[in-house]
Amino acid sequence: MLYLVGLGLADESDITVKGLEVVKKAARVYLEAYTSILLVDKEKLEAYYGRPVIIADREMVESSSDEILADADKVDVAFLVVGDPFGATTHTDLVLRARELHISTQTVPNASIMSGIGATGLQLYNFGQTVSMVFFTENWKPSSWYDRVLENRNIGLHTLVLLDIKVKEPSLEMMARGKIVYESPRYMTVAQCASQMLEIEEDRKQGAYGPDSLAVGAARVGAPNQRLAAGTLKQLAETDLGQPLHSLVLLGSRVHDLERDYIREFAVDVAVFDEVWKRDYEGKQ
Amino acid sequence: MLYLVGLGLADESDITVKGLEVVKKAARVYLEAYTSILLVDKEKLEAYYGRPVIIADREMVESSSDEILADADKVDVAFLVVGDPFGATTHTDLVLRARELHISTQTVPNASIMSGIGATGLQLYNFGQTVSMVFFTENWKPSSWYDRVLENRNIGLHTLVLLDIKVKEPSLEMMARGKIVYESPRYMTVAQCASQMLEIEEDRKQGAYGPDSLAVGAARVGAPNQRLAAGTLKQLAETDLGQPLHSLVLLGSRVHDLERDYIREFAVDVAVFDEVWKRDYEGKQ
Repeated sequence: MLYLVGLGLADESDITVKGLEVVKKAARVYLEAYTSILLVDKEKLEAYYGRPVIIADREMVESSSDEILADADKVDVAFLVVGDPFGATTHTDLVLRARELHISTQTVPNASIMSGIGATGLQLYNFGQTVSMVFFTENWKPSSWYDRVLENRNIGLHTLVLLDIKVKEPSLEMMARGKIVYESPRYMTVAQCASQMLEIEEDRKQGAYGPDSLAVGAARVGAPNQRLAAGTLKQLAETDLGQPLHSLVLLGSRVHDLERDYIREFAVDVAVFDEVWKRDYEGKQ
Repeated sequence: MLYLVGLGLADESDITVKGLEVVKKAARVYLEAYTSILLVDKEKLEAYYGRPVIIADREMVESSSDEILADADKVDVAFLVVGDPFGATTHTDLVLRARELHISTQTVPNASIMSGIGATGLQLYNFGQTVSMVFFTENWKPSSWYDRVLENRNIGLHTLVLLDIKVKEPSLEMMARGKIVYESPRYMTVAQCASQMLEIEEDRKQGAYGPDSLAVGAARVGAPNQRLAAGTLKQLAETDLGQPLHSLVLLGSRVHDLERDYIREFAVDVAVFDEVWKRDYEGKQ
Protein backbone atom coordinates (compact mmCIF):
# COMPACT_ATOMS: atom_id res chain seq x y z
CA MET A 1 0.00 0.00 0.00
CA LEU A 2 1.15 3.52 -0.81
CA TYR A 3 0.10 5.92 1.92
CA LEU A 4 0.09 9.63 1.19
CA VAL A 5 0.29 11.28 4.58
CA GLY A 6 -0.33 14.99 5.14
CA LEU A 7 1.94 16.60 7.75
CA GLY A 8 0.00 19.82 8.28
CA LEU A 9 1.53 23.25 8.38
CA ALA A 10 3.95 23.91 11.19
CA ASP A 11 5.88 21.29 13.16
CA GLU A 12 6.26 17.56 13.85
CA SER A 13 3.22 17.34 16.14
CA ASP A 14 0.85 18.57 13.41
CA ILE A 15 0.74 15.04 11.97
CA THR A 16 -2.54 13.25 12.76
CA VAL A 17 -2.59 10.29 15.14
CA LYS A 18 -3.65 8.14 12.16
CA GLY A 19 -0.76 9.48 10.07
CA LEU A 20 1.77 8.85 12.83
CA GLU A 21 0.62 5.22 13.11
CA VAL A 22 1.18 4.76 9.37
CA VAL A 23 4.68 6.28 9.55
CA LYS A 24 5.71 4.08 12.48
CA LYS A 25 4.66 0.90 10.63
CA ALA A 26 5.77 1.64 7.04
CA ALA A 27 8.70 -0.21 5.46
CA ARG A 28 10.02 3.03 3.94
CA VAL A 29 9.26 6.67 4.70
CA TYR A 30 9.74 9.44 2.10
CA LEU A 31 9.43 13.16 2.74
CA GLU A 32 8.47 15.32 -0.23
CA ALA A 33 10.68 18.34 0.25
CA TYR A 34 10.26 20.76 -2.63
CA THR A 35 6.70 22.09 -2.85
CA SER A 36 6.57 23.16 0.79
CA ILE A 37 8.47 22.81 4.06
CA LEU A 38 7.75 22.29 7.72
CA LEU A 39 9.33 24.64 10.22
CA VAL A 40 11.43 21.77 11.61
CA ASP A 41 14.22 19.79 9.92
CA LYS A 42 14.53 16.17 8.85
CA GLU A 43 16.51 15.11 11.95
CA LYS A 44 13.78 16.35 14.25
CA LEU A 45 11.18 14.40 12.26
CA GLU A 46 13.31 11.24 12.38
CA ALA A 47 13.68 11.52 16.14
CA TYR A 48 9.93 12.11 16.53
CA TYR A 49 8.95 9.19 14.28
CA GLY A 50 11.72 6.89 15.49
CA ARG A 51 12.30 6.13 11.81
CA PRO A 52 14.76 7.10 9.07
CA VAL A 53 13.27 9.52 6.55
CA ILE A 54 14.33 9.60 2.88
CA ILE A 55 14.19 13.07 1.32
CA ALA A 56 12.35 12.98 -2.01
CA ASP A 57 13.36 15.93 -4.15
CA ARG A 58 11.57 17.02 -7.32
CA GLU A 59 13.80 14.89 -9.53
CA MET A 60 13.09 11.73 -7.55
CA VAL A 61 9.33 12.25 -7.44
CA GLU A 62 8.94 13.31 -11.07
CA SER A 63 11.55 11.05 -12.75
CA SER A 64 12.16 8.12 -10.40
CA SER A 65 8.72 7.52 -8.93
CA ASP A 66 9.09 3.77 -9.52
CA GLU A 67 11.88 3.79 -6.95
CA ILE A 68 9.42 5.17 -4.38
CA LEU A 69 6.77 2.65 -5.44
CA ALA A 70 9.12 -0.37 -5.45
CA ASP A 71 7.46 -3.35 -3.69
CA ALA A 72 4.56 -1.19 -2.54
CA ASP A 73 2.24 -4.00 -3.64
CA LYS A 74 3.80 -6.09 -0.85
CA VAL A 75 4.96 -3.63 1.82
CA ASP A 76 3.66 -0.30 3.13
CA VAL A 77 5.36 2.83 1.82
CA ALA A 78 4.63 6.22 3.41
CA PHE A 79 5.01 9.34 1.30
CA LEU A 80 4.86 12.41 3.55
CA VAL A 81 3.69 15.73 2.19
CA VAL A 82 3.72 19.05 4.04
CA GLY A 83 0.13 20.33 4.23
CA ASP A 84 -2.40 18.04 2.54
CA PRO A 85 -1.23 15.37 0.07
CA PHE A 86 -3.45 16.72 -2.70
CA GLY A 87 -2.25 20.31 -2.43
CA ALA A 88 0.25 19.86 -5.29
CA THR A 89 -0.34 18.38 -8.76
CA THR A 90 2.75 16.20 -8.48
CA HIS A 91 1.11 13.84 -6.03
CA THR A 92 -1.87 13.17 -8.26
CA ASP A 93 0.74 11.96 -10.76
CA LEU A 94 2.22 9.59 -8.20
CA VAL A 95 -1.21 8.07 -7.45
CA LEU A 96 -1.90 7.65 -11.18
CA ARG A 97 1.44 5.84 -11.56
CA ALA A 98 0.60 3.59 -8.58
CA ARG A 99 -2.73 2.70 -10.21
CA GLU A 100 -0.90 1.63 -13.39
CA LEU A 101 1.25 -0.67 -11.28
CA HIS A 102 -1.84 -2.03 -9.44
CA ILE A 103 -0.65 -0.63 -6.13
CA SER A 104 -3.39 0.39 -3.71
CA THR A 105 -3.20 3.89 -2.27
CA GLN A 106 -4.66 5.54 0.80
CA THR A 107 -4.55 9.18 1.81
CA VAL A 108 -4.32 10.66 5.29
CA PRO A 109 -5.58 14.25 4.93
CA ASN A 110 -4.29 17.18 6.93
CA ALA A 111 -4.48 20.95 7.07
CA SER A 112 -3.49 22.70 3.86
CA ILE A 113 -2.71 26.37 3.46
CA MET A 114 -5.72 26.39 1.08
CA SER A 115 -8.00 26.02 4.11
CA GLY A 116 -5.56 27.03 6.89
CA ILE A 117 -5.65 30.56 5.48
CA GLY A 118 -9.05 30.77 7.22
CA ALA A 119 -6.93 31.68 10.28
CA THR A 120 -6.85 35.21 8.85
CA GLY A 121 -10.55 35.46 9.69
CA LEU A 122 -11.40 35.80 6.00
CA GLN A 123 -14.23 33.45 5.09
CA LEU A 124 -13.19 30.54 2.88
CA TYR A 125 -16.36 30.70 0.78
CA ASN A 126 -15.42 34.25 -0.26
CA PHE A 127 -12.22 33.06 -1.95
CA GLY A 128 -11.90 32.65 -5.71
CA GLN A 129 -9.18 30.66 -7.42
CA THR A 130 -5.76 30.42 -5.82
CA VAL A 131 -2.68 31.69 -7.66
CA SER A 132 1.07 31.19 -7.32
CA MET A 133 3.77 33.85 -7.38
CA VAL A 134 7.32 32.97 -8.46
CA PHE A 135 10.51 34.92 -7.82
CA PHE A 136 11.01 37.43 -10.64
CA THR A 137 14.39 37.73 -12.28
CA GLU A 138 15.75 40.57 -14.39
CA ASN A 139 14.34 39.00 -17.57
CA TRP A 140 11.58 36.69 -16.37
CA LYS A 141 8.48 38.16 -14.77
CA PRO A 142 5.66 35.72 -15.43
CA SER A 143 2.27 37.31 -14.81
CA SER A 144 -0.41 34.86 -15.94
CA TRP A 145 -1.64 34.95 -12.32
CA TYR A 146 -2.70 38.56 -12.95
CA ASP A 147 -5.56 37.41 -15.20
CA ARG A 148 -6.80 35.07 -12.48
CA VAL A 149 -6.64 37.81 -9.86
CA LEU A 150 -8.59 40.08 -12.19
CA GLU A 151 -11.26 37.39 -12.65
CA ASN A 152 -11.59 37.02 -8.88
CA ARG A 153 -11.68 40.76 -8.29
CA ASN A 154 -14.33 41.26 -11.00
CA ILE A 155 -16.72 39.11 -8.99
CA GLY A 156 -15.68 40.50 -5.61
CA LEU A 157 -13.69 37.53 -4.32
CA HIS A 158 -10.52 37.21 -2.24
CA THR A 159 -7.41 35.73 -3.83
CA LEU A 160 -4.95 33.53 -1.97
CA VAL A 161 -1.45 33.99 -3.36
CA LEU A 162 0.95 31.13 -2.65
CA LEU A 163 4.56 32.22 -2.55
CA ASP A 164 7.53 30.61 -4.29
CA ILE A 165 10.07 28.51 -2.49
CA LYS A 166 13.41 27.50 -4.00
CA VAL A 167 15.13 24.51 -2.49
CA LYS A 168 17.99 22.57 -4.04
CA GLU A 169 18.28 24.87 -7.06
CA PRO A 170 21.57 24.44 -8.95
CA SER A 171 23.67 27.61 -9.14
CA LEU A 172 23.76 28.80 -12.75
CA GLU A 173 27.06 30.57 -12.11
CA MET A 174 28.69 27.37 -10.88
CA MET A 175 27.14 25.31 -13.69
CA ALA A 176 28.85 27.62 -16.19
CA ARG A 177 32.08 26.58 -14.54
CA GLY A 178 31.12 22.92 -14.93
CA LYS A 179 30.17 22.28 -11.31
CA ILE A 180 26.84 21.31 -9.74
CA VAL A 181 26.49 23.40 -6.60
CA TYR A 182 23.13 24.08 -4.97
CA GLU A 183 22.01 27.55 -3.93
CA SER A 184 20.84 28.18 -0.36
CA PRO A 185 17.08 27.76 0.00
CA ARG A 186 14.99 30.88 -0.60
CA TYR A 187 11.44 31.60 0.52
CA MET A 188 9.43 34.49 -0.85
CA THR A 189 8.20 37.00 1.71
CA VAL A 190 4.90 38.87 1.81
CA ALA A 191 6.85 42.07 1.17
CA GLN A 192 8.44 40.66 -2.00
CA CYS A 193 5.08 39.37 -3.21
CA ALA A 194 3.32 42.69 -2.63
CA SER A 195 6.07 44.55 -4.41
CA GLN A 196 6.03 42.16 -7.42
CA MET A 197 2.24 42.56 -7.61
CA LEU A 198 2.59 46.34 -7.74
CA GLU A 199 5.27 46.04 -10.41
CA ILE A 200 2.94 43.99 -12.64
CA GLU A 201 -0.03 46.33 -12.10
CA GLU A 202 2.19 49.23 -13.23
CA ASP A 203 2.81 47.27 -16.40
CA ARG A 204 -0.68 45.85 -17.07
CA LYS A 205 -2.74 48.83 -15.86
CA GLN A 206 -6.02 46.84 -15.91
CA GLY A 207 -6.82 47.85 -12.37
CA ALA A 208 -7.03 44.41 -10.75
CA TYR A 209 -5.71 46.23 -7.67
CA GLY A 210 -3.50 49.16 -6.75
CA PRO A 211 -1.08 50.37 -4.06
CA ASP A 212 -4.05 51.15 -1.77
CA SER A 213 -5.77 47.78 -2.15
CA LEU A 214 -6.15 45.95 1.14
CA ALA A 215 -4.45 42.61 1.68
CA VAL A 216 -3.53 40.31 4.54
CA GLY A 217 -0.06 38.88 4.93
CA ALA A 218 0.16 35.59 6.83
CA ALA A 219 3.36 34.04 8.17
CA ARG A 220 3.79 30.58 9.73
CA VAL A 221 0.06 29.79 9.75
CA GLY A 222 -0.77 27.29 12.50
CA ALA A 223 2.51 27.76 14.38
CA PRO A 224 2.65 29.30 17.87
CA ASN A 225 4.52 32.27 16.34
CA GLN A 226 1.98 32.73 13.53
CA ARG A 227 1.84 36.36 12.45
CA LEU A 228 -0.79 38.24 10.49
CA ALA A 229 -0.67 41.75 9.07
CA ALA A 230 -3.48 43.64 7.34
CA GLY A 231 -2.73 46.70 5.25
CA THR A 232 -2.47 48.16 1.79
CA LEU A 233 -0.19 46.44 -0.72
CA LYS A 234 2.08 49.50 -0.43
CA GLN A 235 2.30 48.99 3.34
CA LEU A 236 2.79 45.23 3.11
CA ALA A 237 5.61 45.74 0.60
CA GLU A 238 7.45 47.33 3.51
CA THR A 239 6.36 44.98 6.31
CA ASP A 240 8.71 42.28 7.59
CA LEU A 241 6.80 39.23 8.81
CA GLY A 242 9.92 37.27 9.76
CA GLN A 243 10.73 33.62 9.08
CA PRO A 244 8.96 31.55 6.33
CA LEU A 245 6.50 30.38 5.13
CA HIS A 246 4.49 33.37 4.00
CA SER A 247 1.23 33.73 2.06
CA LEU A 248 -0.82 36.74 1.00
CA VAL A 249 -4.53 37.31 0.52
CA LEU A 250 -5.76 40.14 -1.68
CA LEU A 251 -9.16 41.27 -0.44
CA GLY A 252 -12.20 41.13 -2.69
CA SER A 253 -14.90 43.80 -2.60
CA ARG A 254 -17.45 41.31 -1.24
CA VAL A 255 -15.66 41.41 2.12
CA HIS A 256 -18.03 41.21 5.07
CA ASP A 257 -18.07 43.44 8.18
CA LEU A 258 -17.27 40.42 10.36
CA GLU A 259 -14.15 39.83 8.27
CA ARG A 260 -13.19 43.49 8.67
CA ASP A 261 -13.62 43.29 12.44
CA TYR A 262 -11.35 40.28 12.53
CA ILE A 263 -8.48 41.59 10.37
CA ARG A 264 -8.58 45.16 11.72
CA GLU A 265 -7.08 43.70 14.93
CA PHE A 266 -3.75 43.14 13.17
CA ALA A 267 -3.73 46.18 10.91
CA VAL A 268 -0.25 47.56 10.24
CA ASP A 269 -1.74 51.00 10.89
CA VAL A 270 -5.35 51.14 12.12
CA ALA A 271 -5.88 54.74 11.00
CA VAL A 272 -4.82 53.98 7.42
CA PHE A 273 -6.84 50.76 7.46
CA ASP A 274 -10.00 52.57 8.57
CA GLU A 275 -9.52 55.34 6.02
CA VAL A 276 -9.01 52.95 3.11
CA TRP A 277 -11.85 50.75 4.29
CA LYS A 278 -14.28 53.66 4.48
CA ARG A 279 -13.25 55.03 1.10
CA ASP A 280 -12.86 51.86 -1.01
CA TYR A 281 -14.68 48.95 0.64
CA GLU A 282 -17.56 50.05 2.89
CA GLY A 283 -20.93 49.55 1.22
CA LYS A 284 -19.31 48.15 -1.95
CA GLN A 285 -20.41 44.55 -1.20
CA MET B 1 -6.52 30.06 26.85
CA LEU B 2 -9.26 29.13 24.38
CA TYR B 3 -8.02 26.44 22.00
CA LEU B 4 -9.93 25.85 18.77
CA VAL B 5 -8.98 22.35 17.74
CA GLY B 6 -9.74 20.88 14.30
CA LEU B 7 -10.74 17.21 14.33
CA GLY B 8 -10.33 16.50 10.62
CA LEU B 9 -12.83 14.66 8.50
CA ALA B 10 -13.45 11.05 9.41
CA ASP B 11 -12.81 9.45 12.80
CA GLU B 12 -11.23 9.93 16.23
CA SER B 13 -7.65 9.31 15.02
CA ASP B 14 -7.80 12.19 12.54
CA ILE B 15 -7.03 14.63 15.36
CA THR B 16 -3.43 15.87 15.25
CA VAL B 17 -0.94 14.85 17.94
CA LYS B 18 -0.82 18.52 18.97
CA GLY B 19 -4.61 18.68 19.16
CA LEU B 20 -4.83 15.52 21.24
CA GLU B 21 -2.33 16.94 23.76
CA VAL B 22 -4.51 20.04 24.14
CA VAL B 23 -7.66 17.96 24.68
CA LYS B 24 -6.01 15.76 27.30
CA LYS B 25 -4.88 18.82 29.32
CA ALA B 26 -7.88 21.16 29.00
CA ALA B 27 -10.14 21.92 31.97
CA ARG B 28 -13.26 21.64 29.76
CA VAL B 29 -13.77 20.08 26.32
CA TYR B 30 -16.62 21.20 24.02
CA LEU B 31 -17.57 19.56 20.73
CA GLU B 32 -19.27 21.77 18.16
CA ALA B 33 -21.91 19.45 16.75
CA TYR B 34 -24.09 21.29 14.26
CA THR B 35 -22.05 22.50 11.26
CA SER B 36 -20.51 19.10 10.56
CA ILE B 37 -20.10 15.65 12.12
CA LEU B 38 -17.45 13.00 12.48
CA LEU B 39 -18.30 9.44 11.50
CA VAL B 40 -17.98 8.35 15.13
CA ASP B 41 -20.15 9.29 18.14
CA LYS B 42 -19.46 11.26 21.31
CA GLU B 43 -18.92 8.16 23.47
CA LYS B 44 -16.16 6.92 21.18
CA LEU B 45 -14.45 10.32 21.34
CA GLU B 46 -14.70 10.40 25.14
CA ALA B 47 -13.15 6.94 25.39
CA TYR B 48 -10.38 7.96 22.98
CA TYR B 49 -9.60 11.23 24.78
CA GLY B 50 -10.12 9.78 28.26
CA ARG B 51 -12.15 12.94 28.93
CA PRO B 52 -15.80 13.98 29.16
CA VAL B 53 -16.98 15.94 26.12
CA ILE B 54 -19.71 18.60 26.31
CA ILE B 55 -21.85 18.84 23.17
CA ALA B 56 -22.15 22.46 22.04
CA ASP B 57 -25.23 22.91 19.86
CA ARG B 58 -25.97 25.98 17.76
CA GLU B 59 -27.90 27.65 20.55
CA MET B 60 -25.06 27.28 23.03
CA VAL B 61 -22.38 28.57 20.63
CA GLU B 62 -24.42 31.46 19.25
CA SER B 63 -26.31 32.56 22.37
CA SER B 64 -24.36 31.28 25.38
CA SER B 65 -20.78 31.63 24.23
CA ASP B 66 -19.83 33.22 27.56
CA GLU B 67 -20.59 29.88 29.20
CA ILE B 68 -17.99 28.24 26.96
CA LEU B 69 -15.53 31.06 27.64
CA ALA B 70 -16.06 31.11 31.43
CA ASP B 71 -12.68 31.27 33.26
CA ALA B 72 -10.80 30.75 30.00
CA ASP B 73 -8.48 33.55 31.11
CA LYS B 74 -7.32 31.23 33.92
CA VAL B 75 -7.82 27.68 32.64
CA ASP B 76 -7.55 26.01 29.23
CA VAL B 77 -10.78 25.40 27.34
CA ALA B 78 -10.78 23.22 24.22
CA PHE B 79 -13.43 23.83 21.58
CA LEU B 80 -13.41 20.97 19.07
CA VAL B 81 -14.60 21.52 15.52
CA VAL B 82 -15.00 18.85 12.85
CA GLY B 83 -12.75 19.72 9.91
CA ASP B 84 -10.78 22.94 10.42
CA PRO B 85 -11.84 25.46 13.11
CA PHE B 86 -12.15 28.26 10.58
CA GLY B 87 -14.39 26.36 8.17
CA ALA B 88 -17.55 27.95 9.62
CA THR B 89 -18.30 31.64 10.29
CA THR B 90 -19.58 30.86 13.77
CA HIS B 91 -16.13 30.20 15.13
CA THR B 92 -14.77 33.51 13.97
CA ASP B 93 -17.52 35.00 16.15
CA LEU B 94 -16.34 32.99 19.15
CA VAL B 95 -12.78 34.25 18.72
CA LEU B 96 -14.01 37.85 18.43
CA ARG B 97 -15.96 37.41 21.67
CA ALA B 98 -12.88 35.94 23.38
CA ARG B 99 -10.87 38.98 22.28
CA GLU B 100 -13.43 41.30 23.88
CA LEU B 101 -13.03 39.38 27.14
CA HIS B 102 -9.20 39.52 26.85
CA ILE B 103 -8.94 35.76 26.55
CA SER B 104 -6.05 34.47 24.45
CA THR B 105 -6.89 32.03 21.68
CA GLN B 106 -4.88 29.47 19.78
CA THR B 107 -5.92 27.37 16.80
CA VAL B 108 -4.90 23.81 15.95
CA PRO B 109 -5.60 23.47 12.20
CA ASN B 110 -6.72 20.27 10.53
CA ALA B 111 -8.05 18.98 7.22
CA SER B 112 -11.17 20.74 5.99
CA ILE B 113 -13.47 19.55 3.23
CA MET B 114 -12.43 22.80 1.48
CA SER B 115 -9.00 21.26 0.85
CA GLY B 116 -9.80 17.57 1.48
CA ILE B 117 -11.90 17.67 -1.67
CA GLY B 118 -8.53 17.50 -3.49
CA ALA B 119 -8.90 13.73 -2.91
CA THR B 120 -11.15 13.77 -5.99
CA GLY B 121 -8.03 14.48 -8.05
CA LEU B 122 -9.46 17.84 -9.06
CA GLN B 123 -6.84 20.55 -8.62
CA LEU B 124 -7.57 22.95 -5.79
CA TYR B 125 -6.32 25.99 -7.72
CA ASN B 126 -9.05 25.31 -10.33
CA PHE B 127 -11.83 25.86 -7.80
CA GLY B 128 -13.85 29.05 -7.60
CA GLN B 129 -15.97 30.06 -4.64
CA THR B 130 -17.61 27.38 -2.52
CA VAL B 131 -21.41 27.28 -2.15
CA SER B 132 -23.84 25.61 0.24
CA MET B 133 -26.99 23.69 -0.64
CA VAL B 134 -29.85 23.46 1.87
CA PHE B 135 -32.73 20.98 1.91
CA PHE B 136 -35.58 22.35 -0.20
CA THR B 137 -39.10 22.27 1.16
CA GLU B 138 -42.36 22.63 -0.74
CA ASN B 139 -42.30 26.41 -0.37
CA TRP B 140 -38.68 27.24 0.27
CA LYS B 141 -36.12 26.66 -2.45
CA PRO B 142 -33.33 29.18 -1.90
CA SER B 143 -31.12 29.50 -4.96
CA SER B 144 -28.69 32.36 -4.36
CA TRP B 145 -25.91 29.75 -4.77
CA TYR B 146 -26.92 29.54 -8.44
CA ASP B 147 -25.46 33.00 -9.14
CA ARG B 148 -22.16 31.94 -7.57
CA VAL B 149 -22.05 28.74 -9.60
CA LEU B 150 -22.72 30.77 -12.73
CA GLU B 151 -19.85 33.15 -11.86
CA ASN B 152 -17.50 30.19 -11.41
CA ARG B 153 -18.65 28.49 -14.61
CA ASN B 154 -18.26 31.72 -16.62
CA ILE B 155 -14.56 31.69 -15.85
CA GLY B 156 -14.17 27.93 -16.24
CA LEU B 157 -13.77 27.00 -12.56
CA HIS B 158 -14.95 24.04 -10.49
CA THR B 159 -17.51 24.62 -7.73
CA LEU B 160 -17.50 22.75 -4.44
CA VAL B 161 -21.05 22.37 -3.13
CA LEU B 162 -21.32 21.71 0.61
CA LEU B 163 -24.44 19.80 1.56
CA ASP B 164 -26.90 20.59 4.32
CA ILE B 165 -27.02 18.70 7.57
CA LYS B 166 -29.90 18.96 10.05
CA VAL B 167 -29.18 17.96 13.60
CA LYS B 168 -31.33 18.75 16.60
CA GLU B 169 -34.06 20.46 14.58
CA PRO B 170 -37.33 20.86 16.52
CA SER B 171 -40.29 19.12 14.90
CA LEU B 172 -42.75 21.78 13.67
CA GLU B 173 -45.62 19.32 13.93
CA MET B 174 -44.85 18.63 17.59
CA MET B 175 -44.30 22.33 18.32
CA ALA B 176 -47.82 23.01 17.04
CA ARG B 177 -48.98 20.63 19.75
CA GLY B 178 -46.96 22.55 22.32
CA LYS B 179 -44.11 20.08 22.65
CA ILE B 180 -40.40 20.38 21.87
CA VAL B 181 -39.36 17.18 20.14
CA TYR B 182 -36.30 16.96 17.92
CA GLU B 183 -36.36 15.39 14.46
CA SER B 184 -33.88 12.62 13.59
CA PRO B 185 -30.69 13.99 12.03
CA ARG B 186 -30.71 14.31 8.23
CA TYR B 187 -27.74 14.58 5.89
CA MET B 188 -28.12 15.62 2.27
CA THR B 189 -26.91 13.10 -0.30
CA VAL B 190 -25.13 13.75 -3.58
CA ALA B 191 -28.25 12.45 -5.36
CA GLN B 192 -30.49 14.97 -3.58
CA CYS B 193 -28.06 17.80 -4.32
CA ALA B 194 -27.80 16.93 -8.03
CA SER B 195 -31.55 16.72 -8.33
CA GLN B 196 -32.10 20.08 -6.55
CA MET B 197 -29.50 21.64 -8.86
CA LEU B 198 -31.38 20.38 -11.91
CA GLU B 199 -34.65 21.67 -10.49
CA ILE B 200 -33.22 25.18 -10.13
CA GLU B 201 -31.65 25.18 -13.60
CA GLU B 202 -35.09 24.29 -15.03
CA ASP B 203 -36.39 27.37 -13.30
CA ARG B 204 -33.54 29.83 -13.95
CA LYS B 205 -32.57 28.66 -17.45
CA GLN B 206 -29.32 30.70 -17.45
CA GLY B 207 -27.29 27.66 -18.46
CA ALA B 208 -24.91 27.50 -15.50
CA TYR B 209 -25.06 23.73 -16.11
CA GLY B 210 -27.44 21.09 -17.37
CA PRO B 211 -28.37 17.41 -16.94
CA ASP B 212 -25.26 16.41 -18.95
CA SER B 213 -22.79 18.56 -17.00
CA LEU B 214 -20.06 16.50 -15.37
CA ALA B 215 -19.68 16.45 -11.62
CA VAL B 216 -17.97 14.40 -8.96
CA GLY B 217 -19.80 13.12 -5.90
CA ALA B 218 -17.64 12.50 -2.83
CA ALA B 219 -18.71 10.55 0.25
CA ARG B 220 -16.82 10.17 3.54
CA VAL B 221 -13.67 11.94 2.29
CA GLY B 222 -10.61 10.77 4.20
CA ALA B 223 -12.30 7.66 5.65
CA PRO B 224 -11.23 4.12 4.70
CA ASN B 225 -14.63 3.70 3.00
CA GLN B 226 -14.36 6.98 1.09
CA ARG B 227 -16.29 6.76 -2.16
CA LEU B 228 -16.10 8.90 -5.29
CA ALA B 229 -18.37 8.90 -8.33
CA ALA B 230 -17.91 10.90 -11.54
CA GLY B 231 -20.79 11.36 -13.92
CA THR B 232 -23.38 13.73 -15.31
CA LEU B 233 -25.72 15.49 -12.88
CA LYS B 234 -28.51 13.32 -14.26
CA GLN B 235 -26.53 10.19 -13.43
CA LEU B 236 -25.48 11.42 -9.99
CA ALA B 237 -29.11 12.25 -9.17
CA GLU B 238 -29.64 8.48 -9.33
CA THR B 239 -26.41 7.32 -7.66
CA ASP B 240 -26.41 6.15 -4.05
CA LEU B 241 -23.09 6.89 -2.34
CA GLY B 242 -24.13 5.46 1.01
CA GLN B 243 -23.61 6.90 4.48
CA PRO B 244 -22.87 10.63 5.09
CA LEU B 245 -21.17 13.06 4.74
CA HIS B 246 -21.44 13.86 1.05
CA SER B 247 -20.14 16.71 -1.10
CA LEU B 248 -20.39 17.49 -4.79
CA VAL B 249 -18.07 19.22 -7.24
CA LEU B 250 -19.45 20.66 -10.47
CA LEU B 251 -16.68 20.62 -13.08
CA GLY B 252 -15.51 23.82 -14.72
CA SER B 253 -14.53 23.96 -18.39
CA ARG B 254 -10.91 24.67 -17.48
CA VAL B 255 -10.54 21.06 -16.35
CA HIS B 256 -7.13 19.55 -17.16
CA ASP B 257 -6.41 16.20 -18.85
CA LEU B 258 -4.67 15.00 -15.69
CA GLU B 259 -7.86 15.71 -13.74
CA ARG B 260 -9.87 13.78 -16.33
CA ASP B 261 -7.50 10.79 -16.07
CA TYR B 262 -7.95 10.78 -12.33
CA ILE B 263 -11.74 11.04 -12.13
CA ARG B 264 -12.43 8.74 -15.12
CA GLU B 265 -11.32 5.88 -12.85
CA PHE B 266 -14.48 6.21 -10.77
CA ALA B 267 -16.92 7.13 -13.54
CA VAL B 268 -20.45 5.84 -12.96
CA ASP B 269 -20.39 4.75 -16.61
CA VAL B 270 -17.11 5.12 -18.50
CA ALA B 271 -18.75 5.12 -21.93
CA VAL B 272 -21.06 7.99 -21.02
CA PHE B 273 -18.22 9.83 -19.31
CA ASP B 274 -16.01 9.57 -22.42
CA GLU B 275 -18.80 10.64 -24.73
CA VAL B 276 -19.75 13.71 -22.68
CA TRP B 277 -16.09 14.59 -22.16
CA LYS B 278 -15.34 14.46 -25.88
CA ARG B 279 -18.42 16.47 -26.79
CA ASP B 280 -18.52 19.15 -24.07
CA TYR B 281 -15.10 19.43 -22.39
CA GLU B 282 -12.21 18.31 -24.62
CA GLY B 283 -10.35 21.26 -26.09
CA LYS B 284 -12.63 23.77 -24.30
CA GLN B 285 -9.95 24.76 -21.78
